[in-house]
Amino acid sequence: MMNAGKVYLVGAGPGAPDLLTLRAAELLKRADIVFHDALVHPDTIALAVNAERVAVGKRCGRHSTAQRFINKRLVDAVRKHEVVVRLKGGDPMLFGRAQEEIAALQTAGIEYEVVPGVTAALAASAELGVSLTQRGRARSVTFVTPRVAEGEKANDWARTVAASDTAVIYMGAGQAEMIATALLAQGMHPQTPVRVVENASLPERQHYSLNLRDLPSVTRLVIAGPALIMLGEVYGECAQEAARAASEARCA
Amino acid sequence: MMNAGKVYLVGAGPGAPDLLTLRAAELLKRADIVFHDALVHPDTIALAVNAERVAVGKRCGRHSTAQRFINKRLVDAVRKHEVVVRLKGGDPMLFGRAQEEIAALQTAGIEYEVVPGVTAALAASAELGVSLTQRGRARSVTFVTPRVAEGEKANDWARTVAASDTAVIYMGAGQAEMIATALLAQGMHPQTPVRVVENASLPERQHYSLNLRDLPSVTRLVIAGPALIMLGEVYGECAQEAARAASEARCA
Repeated sequence: MMNAGKVYLVGAGPGAPDLLTLRAAELLKRADIVFHDALVHPDTIALAVNAERVAVGKRCGRHSTAQRFINKRLVDAVRKHEVVVRLKGGDPMLFGRAQEEIAALQTAGIEYEVVPGVTAALAASAELGVSLTQRGRARSVTFVTPRVAEGEKANDWARTVAASDTAVIYMGAGQAEMIATALLAQGMHPQTPVRVVENASLPERQHYSLNLRDLPSVTRLVIAGPALIMLGEVYGECAQEAARAASEARCA
Repeated sequence: MMNAGKVYLVGAGPGAPDLLTLRAAELLKRADIVFHDALVHPDTIALAVNAERVAVGKRCGRHSTAQRFINKRLVDAVRKHEVVVRLKGGDPMLFGRAQEEIAALQTAGIEYEVVPGVTAALAASAELGVSLTQRGRARSVTFVTPRVAEGEKANDWARTVAASDTAVIYMGAGQAEMIATALLAQGMHPQTPVRVVENASLPERQHYSLNLRDLPSVTRLVIAGPALIMLGEVYGECAQEAARAASEARCA
């Protein structure tokens, strides 16, 4: 029976197993085979009780399975299995490279469905107790990665960050010095408040509070897990005092 | 017993009840009282089997309970109940006005915890099968609302959208003409591809595919539920063909 099955591209959420969606948990229970990123929590993968479980890498900066090989394995799997799950950290449609897998499935005429997940920036914000947007203070938030693909202009991402009220930089902690230099060159204030959140939602999480000028120092902090760099006035004392006063008073 | 309990600010997700997180579902089961937004799905609220359920409005453009009154009710509730849930559509930290509730709880010395949720833009992207970011094409996505609070410069949000590769405008469908005018004034191309997604993740969802010049026409479409305006080259034919070809070939 050719292509009897369906491929589900499923967001595993930010890390904590109970931040998975009900729909994702149900699909994992039904799965015949699961191809999962290296960073997905073992307890999440364990929900796929009846499935063959295949790690397909994609750990930032470490050995990872080539994207084309993953695409091929998905296409091959659906010829033998009914419920094929591709389990990705966070949300599949945000820095998840889902488009390349979707394109391969479409080309092969295979049915697919995407199941969204909680992205790391939302889990980090929950932990910090600081909203990404705040009425009268921040009406926009940008999620960006500074990694540069061939042929791209290197600094477009910095212009985008500078134009946004709040910004969350994914996969950037290893390039903190380059990021600080690029953002300062865009005219961002050296005192712009910054939070670095490592391992959001996991017991081993770490939060660092600093400012843009001191951002390069995060490379000296022990950052072992995935980390977000979060910038903007919402992380400043002023914003927090203003919210605390719950008034219209303006912090100079 | 004063302040024996705890307040949980919980994201209900984009609409579909099974896009709730496992953690949120568990908290609803344990809840003594739930204060929920008007837009939260009845099946989600029904998970709070043992709880008193209180609707506190916040339906865009309709009658809603004043924020200060909600803050007061949360503070009062924790004096009588152990598990107080404030259930918000989407994610609490993204256009959820959580900061004002957190500030009130902090001022009153009440313990709180934020539980993240799947935001509507991620559910809409899953449905469309189009990733918000795409390698070599879109490294940034901005979530923004054009609603203007007193004292704010009205067009900052448009500059942010224009500087981002992909943008998702929340709570903007009723102001489509103003949005198109502001974005064109920022130099965005009239042919910029646009998707409008109404009621993301729900059976009554609607998707519209158009371009920036024609965006004002969405006000003539029947938009009854919450809608997102999504803009960027990722929604163009070129991006989709390029992904489909799964090659390095460039679309002119």
